[in-house]
Amino acid sequence: MADGASETKTSNQMWGGRFASGPDAIMEEINASIGFDKKLYAQDIRGSKVHAEMLAHQGIISVADKDAILGGLDTILSEIEAGTFEFSRRLEDIHMNVESRLATLIGPAAGRLHTARSRNDQVALDFRLWVKEELQKVETALTRLIAAFLDRAEEHADTVMPGFTHLQTAQPVTFGHHCMAYVEMFGRDRARVRHAIEHMDESPIGAAALAGTGFPIDRHMTAKALGFSGPTRNSIDTVSDRDFALEFLSIAAISATHLSRLAEEIVIWSTPQFGFVRLSDAFSTGSSIMPQKKNPDAAELVRAKTGRINGSLIALLTIMKGLPLAYSKDMQEDKEQVFDSAESLELGLAAMTGMVRDMTINTERMKKAAGSGFSTATDLADWLVREAGLPFRDAHHVTGRAVALAESKACDLGELSLSDLQAIHAAITDKVFDVLTVEASVASRTSFGGTAPAEVRRQIAWWRARN
Amino acid sequence: MADGASETKTSNQMWGGRFASGPDAIMEEINASIGFDKKLYAQDIRGSKVHAEMLAHQGIISVADKDAILGGLDTILSEIEAGTFEFSRRLEDIHMNVESRLATLIGPAAGRLHTARSRNDQVALDFRLWVKEELQKVETALTRLIAAFLDRAEEHADTVMPGFTHLQTAQPVTFGHHCMAYVEMFGRDRARVRHAIEHMDESPIGAAALAGTGFPIDRHMTAKALGFSGPTRNSIDTVSDRDFALEFLSIAAISATHLSRLAEEIVIWSTPQFGFVRLSDAFSTGSSIMPQKKNPDAAELVRAKTGRINGSLIALLTIMKGLPLAYSKDMQEDKEQVFDSAESLELGLAAMTGMVRDMTINTERMKKAAGSGFSTATDLADWLVREAGLPFRDAHHVTGRAVALAESKACDLGELSLSDLQAIHAAITDKVFDVLTVEASVASRTSFGGTAPAEVRRQIAWWRARN
Amino acid sequence: MADGASETKTSNQMWGGRFASGPDAIMEEINASIGFDKKLYAQDIRGSKVHAEMLAHQGIISVADKDAILGGLDTILSEIEAGTFEFSRRLEDIHMNVESRLATLIGPAAGRLHTARSRNDQVALDFRLWVKEELQKVETALTRLIAAFLDRAEEHADTVMPGFTHLQTAQPVTFGHHCMAYVEMFGRDRARVRHAIEHMDESPIGAAALAGTGFPIDRHMTAKALGFSGPTRNSIDTVSDRDFALEFLSIAAISATHLSRLAEEIVIWSTPQFGFVRLSDAFSTGSSIMPQKKNPDAAELVRAKTGRINGSLIALLTIMKGLPLAYSKDMQEDKEQVFDSAESLELGLAAMTGMVRDMTINTERMKKAAGSGFSTATDLADWLVREAGLPFRDAHHVTGRAVALAESKACDLGELSLSDLQAIHAAITDKVFDVLTVEASVASRTSFGGTAPAEVRRQIAWWRARN
Amino acid sequence: MADGASETKTSNQMWGGRFASGPDAIMEEINASIGFDKKLYAQDIRGSKVHAEMLAHQGIISVADKDAILGGLDTILSEIEAGTFEFSRRLEDIHMNVESRLATLIGPAAGRLHTARSRNDQVALDFRLWVKEELQKVETALTRLIAAFLDRAEEHADTVMPGFTHLQTAQPVTFGHHCMAYVEMFGRDRARVRHAIEHMDESPIGAAALAGTGFPIDRHMTAKALGFSGPTRNSIDTVSDRDFALEFLSIAAISATHLSRLAEEIVIWSTPQFGFVRLSDAFSTGSSIMPQKKNPDAAELVRAKTGRINGSLIALLTIMKGLPLAYSKDMQEDKEQVFDSAESLELGLAAMTGMVRDMTINTERMKKAAGSGFSTATDLADWLVREAGLPFRDAHHVTGRAVALAESKACDLGELSLSDLQAIHAAITDKVFDVLTVEASVASRTSFGGTAPAEVRRQIAWWRARN
Repeated sequence: MADGASETKTSNQMWGGRFASGPDAIMEEINASIGFDKKLYAQDIRGSKVHAEMLAHQGIISVADKDAILGGLDTILSEIEAGTFEFSRRLEDIHMNVESRLATLIGPAAGRLHTARSRNDQVALDFRLWVKEELQKVETALTRLIAAFLDRAEEHADTVMPGFTHLQTAQPVTFGHHCMAYVEMFGRDRARVRHAIEHMDESPIGAAALAGTGFPIDRHMTAKALGFSGPTRNSIDTVSDRDFALEFLSIAAISATHLSRLAEEIVIWSTPQFGFVRLSDAFSTGSSIMPQKKNPDAAELVRAKTGRINGSLIALLTIMKGLPLAYSKDMQEDKEQVFDSAESLELGLAAMTGMVRDMTINTERMKKAAGSGFSTATDLADWLVREAGLPFRDAHHVTGRAVALAESKACDLGELSLSDLQAIHAAITDKVFDVLTVEASVASRTSFGGTAPAEVRRQIAWWRARN
Repeated sequence: MADGASETKTSNQMWGGRFASGPDAIMEEINASIGFDKKLYAQDIRGSKVHAEMLAHQGIISVADKDAILGGLDTILSEIEAGTFEFSRRLEDIHMNVESRLATLIGPAAGRLHTARSRNDQVALDFRLWVKEELQKVETALTRLIAAFLDRAEEHADTVMPGFTHLQTAQPVTFGHHCMAYVEMFGRDRARVRHAIEHMDESPIGAAALAGTGFPIDRHMTAKALGFSGPTRNSIDTVSDRDFALEFLSIAAISATHLSRLAEEIVIWSTPQFGFVRLSDAFSTGSSIMPQKKNPDAAELVRAKTGRINGSLIALLTIMKGLPLAYSKDMQEDKEQVFDSAESLELGLAAMTGMVRDMTINTERMKKAAGSGFSTATDLADWLVREAGLPFRDAHHVTGRAVALAESKACDLGELSLSDLQAIHAAITDKVFDVLTVEASVASRTSFGGTAPAEVRRQIAWWRARN
Repeated sequence: MADGASETKTSNQMWGGRFASGPDAIMEEINASIGFDKKLYAQDIRGSKVHAEMLAHQGIISVADKDAILGGLDTILSEIEAGTFEFSRRLEDIHMNVESRLATLIGPAAGRLHTARSRNDQVALDFRLWVKEELQKVETALTRLIAAFLDRAEEHADTVMPGFTHLQTAQPVTFGHHCMAYVEMFGRDRARVRHAIEHMDESPIGAAALAGTGFPIDRHMTAKALGFSGPTRNSIDTVSDRDFALEFLSIAAISATHLSRLAEEIVIWSTPQFGFVRLSDAFSTGSSIMPQKKNPDAAELVRAKTGRINGSLIALLTIMKGLPLAYSKDMQEDKEQVFDSAESLELGLAAMTGMVRDMTINTERMKKAAGSGFSTATDLADWLVREAGLPFRDAHHVTGRAVALAESKACDLGELSLSDLQAIHAAITDKVFDVLTVEASVASRTSFGGTAPAEVRRQIAWWRARN
Repeated sequence: MADGASETKTSNQMWGGRFASGPDAIMEEINASIGFDKKLYAQDIRGSKVHAEMLAHQGIISVADKDAILGGLDTILSEIEAGTFEFSRRLEDIHMNVESRLATLIGPAAGRLHTARSRNDQVALDFRLWVKEELQKVETALTRLIAAFLDRAEEHADTVMPGFTHLQTAQPVTFGHHCMAYVEMFGRDRARVRHAIEHMDESPIGAAALAGTGFPIDRHMTAKALGFSGPTRNSIDTVSDRDFALEFLSIAAISATHLSRLAEEIVIWSTPQFGFVRLSDAFSTGSSIMPQKKNPDAAELVRAKTGRINGSLIALLTIMKGLPLAYSKDMQEDKEQVFDSAESLELGLAAMTGMVRDMTINTERMKKAAGSGFSTATDLADWLVREAGLPFRDAHHVTGRAVALAESKACDLGELSLSDLQAIHAAITDKVFDVLTVEASVASRTSFGGTAPAEVRRQIAWWRARN
């Protein structure tokens, strides 16, 4: 709590500008957190109620005091949610704002709420509860996005498109298969989210300032009431730990990276040159003058949010670097980074779920692109290995000659004559034409996790059972 | 401009939670920038006024239209500054908010303001003007901080303290000399700020959407009116360039690193164990229960802000990475990073100026620490080289033996007897005692930039002439 | 595979300097990865052997070919480990170096090894195997560091030291308790490592170029032989996924943050001003001239490694941002970041294990520091709440007056007379002196996870059972 | 200098693995820098020679000793460049390796070289010299890349291509104009490089350990001999400052961002779907099986290097954060980050210079793409403003209707009949058709910095005069 600085020599010249009112103004500006930590009001009040109930249960405060406290806190919650609560920056943070109002409402009993706790464990609790709830929201949002992809994958399990490496056509795949690649990515994100909840599922309250307390509190009781698996095991660590925030930001950064890859594909695929997809009006912007133009603004913004989340991750890692134990005020800078990243991630996941659900797939353009560029050359090579017994490297060589011939004739591989092909290698038979279409190519890749429609459908079913 | 999406199939189940109202809500949420770019209102209006004057001067619009536009824009400026302007999120950004209000105020003439420009060059102009002004503010703030250090350096040009390497006492220095190290750092920051202004001192307006325009505009006229050295030279680059923002963030990150080093020293020096400085009440917080405790909250927060600024730098570098030319919507994410870093940097500089000016120096503690730990051992070695002609490495060896002897006698180097010293090396005379006090040590280091009080005063004078 | 560029117009003037030999030199320089990916030789050969055995088992290649391949690969492994293998930069990477040598050793059969696979799934396999093994090494290193802390915690369960907030003395704690805070941190790191292994425990081999294959391979067989829980489920994702590397780097960054906090404490605690610990000679450096100086170089370097690991995390996040599926050459930049971070993390964990085991604890200095600064003021306040029934906020006020009195008398709280205390609040009895010593203070904090020696010992036992 | 730790209790079980030999091995591994700082050998020797000459000139050492030192250093330089010098990790760093060898070569006189200097100012000098030279190399490389773009711009000043925003066709531009956008970017990078050289152009030598020295050295003489504009002004700052490295990394990160944008365009433009450019064989890789495939590996790698450089920037910012003055061992981690980024930046600039010079422009594909998608709609709107006096917003509306009509007739704007257009707005005359071709569109944009070929040529000439 600030001392109520009594500095009087404040001179306007010295500070100038926005800090014209001197040191006190600067200190209040840099020190106050109520501007952002009021977001934690619900967690703060919930934590205080559980703490009060435990104190009464343990006989540390009276039942009457406990009832007064609970009543007062409920009133404050209502006031905040009704928008009638007046937050004061002079009271610095959400904890002091609530506590001060409680004193006004119920008098001296309010002073007993702070028994056996400190702002250090209180803020650790509030923030941890918030992050845990946010992880649960992200889990749900990932499940929705996976569901959207499963639907599109099922719809397009047979839709042939080019499989790219280096953004060059490599081999035909199906759009359903491509969708399922994202299901895997967001599925991994969800696994990380679930484990992160496990890693942080301990209750900080009762660690007090940093050393624990001599009051006969029951930390298992408060932990249980707050939905944690148990209390944290070391009070110093409890008030100095922000791993849960760092882990949240790490997971968010990886998931945002996945979103950015999808966004990049949407931007590229929406160009007139590719024309693979067309975004719905809801997720693009146009120009009053060029009605054909559908700018993929939402995809671009999702792509950009990656930068923002990476920035927040680096910010908190930098803040925590080299901090001696236990609590340092540096740690107050943790919340805005997490709040901002949570907002960006939730928004990105929701926007992508919408884009994926709503976008129109141009199956004609996809198929045409898949068939160009000798994309089935590998299929010819594989056929030579499988049917004619050539070592793979030799089969590659033969295929290279066939492609060169097709290129010189300006035709595709499947349009070469049998005699043309036999002139290149005598072992080739007319069975070879069965593998040279894009449909045959994708149908043949039946290995586990391969692009064959049947295999893609099998993976969809596997995921449906788990989503 | 968004199409005003007409999506109707919105289902509450699909979006859930905060996006219950469906795609439109998500799109508006992710797309609108008015929440932060309204900060650019003054720059936007100023740019529009200059543009209108140029259009009239070139005969592209009539003088009557120009006058109407200028009047309308002045009204809008007054409304915004009076807090009566109603910002609309539906109008997305500051440009459309102003333009829409202008149409209401002056009718069809408002439509002529957008001749020969586009939102792309308009936002580039607004943001660039803002950053340029911010750089000028940072320059001033650095000058103030340097002035604070110059004052303390002068006051403490003779105050001896330990010079640390590895946070271990190495050699005595003066506190004035230590202050001047920070003058050098913040002086370099200021040099970078000044050059950054040069690098970005070109006017974007007139680049239009990305290709320039066929209207006979005069970009030199607008550049001059806006205080730029001239117009940018390539319209595509103009709308795709955010170097000025990246350079601002780079400079801010380096300056914040300097602030963090100072903050770390203040935190360590304020411990009871060091006790070198005592922060004023204005820049520390206490505890109602432990009145002796003066927590260096402001220093800790300044130290933490480094993380935040580094994060913003990385965010914008990541956002810009791999963006094809010219404008992509990703770039809308540039402003919040710069605004937040500017706020943090200004606050950090002001807080540190205050702390440096107000803190009490405990010269006793400093001097006592400087004299312990054989800190003048190097002086003995140097004396042996200079007066007795030993090679430096041999002199080191002799000194090592003297220190070992002093350690075994639990005394300091200057307390050894001459015979003790001569037993170690015969060339030692009683002149040696002149160099073994901390005062003699600092006074002797008269090399350019060295810690001798006279030299420190010379450097203070040099800087005073340049601040 | 590079085309063996045939550019002939190369001009020395154009390229200059190190690229004097023209485009080919630049391309070879930028493209080759053998300089770092040769580190994957063991994984590459192991993967190839398993692949060959599966191909033979499935009848895709003959047993004779398989035997030749296995023999050849074993020879290559011996050659590499004996240092006689000649790596060629012209062959770009580890895969081509091994394959080329295999062809020399066993002739055409070598060509059959590449059936039903591609460099894309091969590099994914090699790198994933390497990261998985590294995670296992990190798990072991964490277990060793935890063991070192458990030993020191047990040894110092009763050693009183100041508990710091804001690096100011707050309340007495025990050094054992402080050690256990690090056990919690590194324990969380280990939990994250274990889950990361789970998240990436799928075999990539068989994904081929990106689409799977038409050969009747058995990916479950190869997965099992390589120690994975099963094969990956989507071939496109398999060759485009680097989550396992990103997750490794995230975990490393958080763990390095913990190491940096410990390093910072060691640096501060080793100053003459604190003097809490003294590093062993093995983990410090001295100066031939100042024998009392023990620079904590190793701790400083561990602290600095955090920067390096954060940098690698940001590097790979940036590289992966916005990459369209499936494989892009950008991804070749993944390995050096992970290799370097793994090296830094392993080194940091080993160095800290050594420092923690070897450092000398100055229990006198710790205890003295713990007792100064009215560190038991909270105990007085708690006593007033508990024994005299004051609300906590009132108790704080009374305590503040007691501290002020002690300060004015230049004595500690426990040295005030009973009448002095009773003059401040009548309810105080001589029982109060039982709580005003640092020993009583720490002994009283028996809440779960608190600093009371008995509680610390209970937590040590809990961890011993799990380490 | 390490104490040569004598720890004997080393146990294999304790350290395990690579650190089996115990603490000494870990310490040597973490502490030694010779593995990377040997890169500074030329700077180290050059600095020592200048220092020796100054010492002799000032009478601090004898001329004979100076001559012996210079001779010995020349011998060492030859040995290192001939590859016969044996670097020892036990001697930790380049400075001790050189000094130790000098002692072997010339005996005790070697010990006099270290008079009035320390490793702290020596390493600051060596590294600063290296960075300054690297900045000069980067300046040259930027000049080459700009020259390549100027040539291509001149060649293609009339080549029409689509100007993109959001990767959607916006308005026609010329490829020459697009090239000149990159000239602006790399020109700004060069301006930053030049100013960075100014910011760091001061000589550190003579700052000694941190306090300066009592020897009568002449720092202006050494500064001049080493090519600096003068000596640094504060010895504490001199040994603690790494701004020059941070500024180098910042500039490299911004320049790498520019390279990444160019790389992204090359990757997208090389797809069969765009087909705007075709890379030379020298800068792409193919597949033996798909001869049509030209993978833009070099462009992808250049794009990825951005991540690496951003990572190094963040690494050093993190390392320097919160370091108390003056020298801390953390700072030893500065060099690898800078060396690696310098390598990446030089390579990226050289590779891009090659790609830009060698790539084939498909002017047909560019022009065709420029003409599609009603890209001249803005020209129609501008014509309505200019010739028919409509406010811009009204002109937009009319144009929108014309585009809609053309879209419904599946024709382009220029293919609508005059009566069609007049039905939309009566003021339209047949003069309008003059502005509806892509050639007319680009030719019309003659504003300063606009895309009109004449204007592009004017900017080329301006740059030629400055490159």
